[in-house]
Amino acid sequence: MGGRVTDAVFRPGSVAVVGASSNVDSPGHDYVRSLVDFGFRGPLYPINPRAAEIAGLRAYPSLSAVPGEVEYVISCIPADGVLALIDESRAKGVRTLHLFTGRFGETGKAEAAALERAVKERAAAAGIRIIGPNCMGVYDASHGMAFRPDLPREPGDVAFISQSGNNSVELMLHGAARGLRFSKVVSYGNALDLSEADFLDYLADDAATRVVGAYIEGTADGRRLFDALRRCARAKPVVVLKGGRTGAGSRTAASHTAALAGRRQVWSAVLRQAGAVEVDTFDELIDMLVAFAFLRDAQQTADNGQQTTDKRPTGDGRASVGVVGGGGGRAVQSADVCEEAGLRVPKLPEAIRATLREKAPDLADWVDNPVDQSILAGSGVSGARVLELMLANPEFDALIANVGEDWVLGRPDAAERMAHLVDRFAAIGRQAGKPLAFVLGPADSPDETKWRAVEGGRQRLTDARLAVYPSVDRAAVAVARFVAHGTSTIG
Amino acid sequence: MGGRVTDAVFRPGSVAVVGASSNVDSPGHDYVRSLVDFGFRGPLYPINPRAAEIAGLRAYPSLSAVPGEVEYVISCIPADGVLALIDESRAKGVRTLHLFTGRFGETGKAEAAALERAVKERAAAAGIRIIGPNCMGVYDASHGMAFRPDLPREPGDVAFISQSGNNSVELMLHGAARGLRFSKVVSYGNALDLSEADFLDYLADDAATRVVGAYIEGTADGRRLFDALRRCARAKPVVVLKGGRTGAGSRTAASHTAALAGRRQVWSAVLRQAGAVEVDTFDELIDMLVAFAFLRDAQQTADNGQQTTDKRPTGDGRASVGVVGGGGGRAVQSADVCEEAGLRVPKLPEAIRATLREKAPDLADWVDNPVDQSILAGSGVSGARVLELMLANPEFDALIANVGEDWVLGRPDAAERMAHLVDRFAAIGRQAGKPLAFVLGPADSPDETKWRAVEGGRQRLTDARLAVYPSVDRAAVAVARFVAHGTSTIG
Repeated sequence: MGGRVTDAVFRPGSVAVVGASSNVDSPGHDYVRSLVDFGFRGPLYPINPRAAEIAGLRAYPSLSAVPGEVEYVISCIPADGVLALIDESRAKGVRTLHLFTGRFGETGKAEAAALERAVKERAAAAGIRIIGPNCMGVYDASHGMAFRPDLPREPGDVAFISQSGNNSVELMLHGAARGLRFSKVVSYGNALDLSEADFLDYLADDAATRVVGAYIEGTADGRRLFDALRRCARAKPVVVLKGGRTGAGSRTAASHTAALAGRRQVWSAVLRQAGAVEVDTFDELIDMLVAFAFLRDAQQTADNGQQTTDKRPTGDGRASVGVVGGGGGRAVQSADVCEEAGLRVPKLPEAIRATLREKAPDLADWVDNPVDQSILAGSGVSGARVLELMLANPEFDALIANVGEDWVLGRPDAAERMAHLVDRFAAIGRQAGKPLAFVLGPADSPDETKWRAVEGGRQRLTDARLAVYPSVDRAAVAVARFVAHGTSTIG
Repeated sequence: MGGRVTDAVFRPGSVAVVGASSNVDSPGHDYVRSLVDFGFRGPLYPINPRAAEIAGLRAYPSLSAVPGEVEYVISCIPADGVLALIDESRAKGVRTLHLFTGRFGETGKAEAAALERAVKERAAAAGIRIIGPNCMGVYDASHGMAFRPDLPREPGDVAFISQSGNNSVELMLHGAARGLRFSKVVSYGNALDLSEADFLDYLADDAATRVVGAYIEGTADGRRLFDALRRCARAKPVVVLKGGRTGAGSRTAASHTAALAGRRQVWSAVLRQAGAVEVDTFDELIDMLVAFAFLRDAQQTADNGQQTTDKRPTGDGRASVGVVGGGGGRAVQSADVCEEAGLRVPKLPEAIRATLREKAPDLADWVDNPVDQSILAGSGVSGARVLELMLANPEFDALIANVGEDWVLGRPDAAERMAHLVDRFAAIGRQAGKPLAFVLGPADSPDETKWRAVEGGRQRLTDARLAVYPSVDRAAVAVARFVAHGTSTIG
């Protein structure tokens, strides 16, 4: 059990790209370019029978022609050349073969499925591990491994395993925009040899990985997957988007990665029992990875020595949330979506009102939780100040701060105002001993100045490793699930 | 019943801004600036006792000092000056008074509530209609009426009424990014005189308005609101976001606009019976306005003479959807979210396979619905071509096209590729006789080049008046609700 994925899979000493190409618009070019750009340190060999040089590197006509050792091969050649490539790889002492090459079992054709089985047997006989086929392969920026030049250069602590190549790219790019950075990512396609269970086993023990996300379409061994999920989820949060939950989705998964998708209810039960967090959409997947990467959890809070004695009145068992920022409409919406997400939205505690009364006696009995920013306007009390009071008050288990409504963006000095506001919030966020989510955006303005103001503000928050959501409803759901997860696993 | 809102409310002949200001960072400046920038044609009078000129216009010390007639007054003065302003307005023959001025009933203070009642009585005695208090007021770009300089300049056919000022601004700005343009918008705050029911009555008959959105926190007259909603919903689609659905939300609504929010179940039943579409979040509100503004409906299709005889096999009564574009992971997700949204995702019909077989015999039995773009790669058959075949096939009631996955955005010539791809899809969209939704984005890349590529693509689609969604799950829900609404109202 376990041990089938080793560091050699993510951090090989040498790499050859078979089917490397000078065509900048081809995968055979992308792989070479990515490894060069990410600074892969070991020897890197483009293999192409008709090119002398690719991406500035000397190219070789065949794997056998490479002078040195080759530990890891990336294959971009057509499927019918793969058996011969395995023979050549065996002769060369290759340990891992990543097959970007597709058109195997997923085509639904008997001869392609037979070829896939032959590939599996031949590789097993040669002692070569297979990643794929039909996938993007491996990313580990700390080792210079990447499958696209535009992926984040700096490594992080979130891992992602994906049966879909495109999903792996989209998760990394849209996740990066939310501040996520990655320890290891693998797009593993048809999972002919190394499977989701193998990667989960590896990530459970990977010291560089603190949070794990997964896009899984199906499995060949439900029991092994359950065990690997449970082991991994005991070590760190695991968020799973299951593709092929429905009849149509399952049929589509079969033609995508030849996966046996299985029933939704079975999967949901398996994920729940394994302690993983199940999500239904790509947005939710990113939202929960952001939550686990950036929200402080109750354990940390306890470790910080805060609130261990002064425990809030638990009431009905729901976690209670405080919300600041935004005008009256946003305050009402915030209250609705938080309560609908399962959070309690208590009234502003008297202790906080008493503090507010000193500076703003007229407003102290009017302003409430969620805090309507427009009530505070001109009072000398800022939303950020109320947020600080809420963070210090035991009534609140978690906080949400709406930042930079469109009103700010309409001001002539929007970018500076936004930066000033965000910096104040970011300073509070860095100190927060409770889960604190920020709402900013979406950065969807066709107006470049506004886009820059929102995007710049978001980057200031994510640079401070804070959780940012594009809407208060998405923040509310993420905070509620984050808090519930902490309770169920720690409590 | 009806008639309380007239054209004079949205299209006054002359306007005075009382409390106009030279401080560019104040509402008293924004109103004058907005009217000037939007080209309000009638006389426009800034009123300020200490300024000779505001925003390039001659200012007057008081309403009484204005030489000409004043039909409409925007008040930015403090609440304690409003009774005197009503007296002055009466003397001047003012017909409509918009009170941006707040701090009335919403403060929860008895004296402020008493002042609000006095304002209501004094205005009624003077025959002056009140918009507000505590609101942004009126937008009608075709008449040069606007409450912020950065709202869309060109008019459109979507109306929006909002109890929250900030929501009205955010709806317009984020809606504009999705291509929405507006006929009339009103932020009506505490609804002291003119209420949501009055505005809905007016919009039911407004020839410039084809779709109506509403953000409502509460009502003083449930029966009247129901009647107005029903009358309006019979004339055109009405989408309602109810603020204050929960206990906490209702409490917050009281401190925002002094609204009596009422129970969620009651509101949902009222909205359903009135034929309105209820949404729970701001994103859903925009998504459904985009659907009603830009998706073709079944009635139009019938009018175009298509599909009236060749009716699809109805099966279980669910509408069936065809999906193209995106790689395998996106195809699986698309299938899942469509089926979960209540749509049927049928297999690709044999007639379409037969057509595909001519050009791509190897793929014709493999590719399915949703169409996995990566299967088509290099085959000479484009996703756009399959979309055309699906549009022409009676099996499909609605279509979703995933445009420009992140793979495209990683290419060196991303912007041109995106433009080319989008133009091809837009040409198909313009001809479509069925609901056809596009998925593009979100435009959340911190990389400016990528942002421009996505944003530029989105603008090309919205310029063609096509419905664009930032994720396939949001598109699926919107299409499903759109189709269901058409069935329930037309069928």
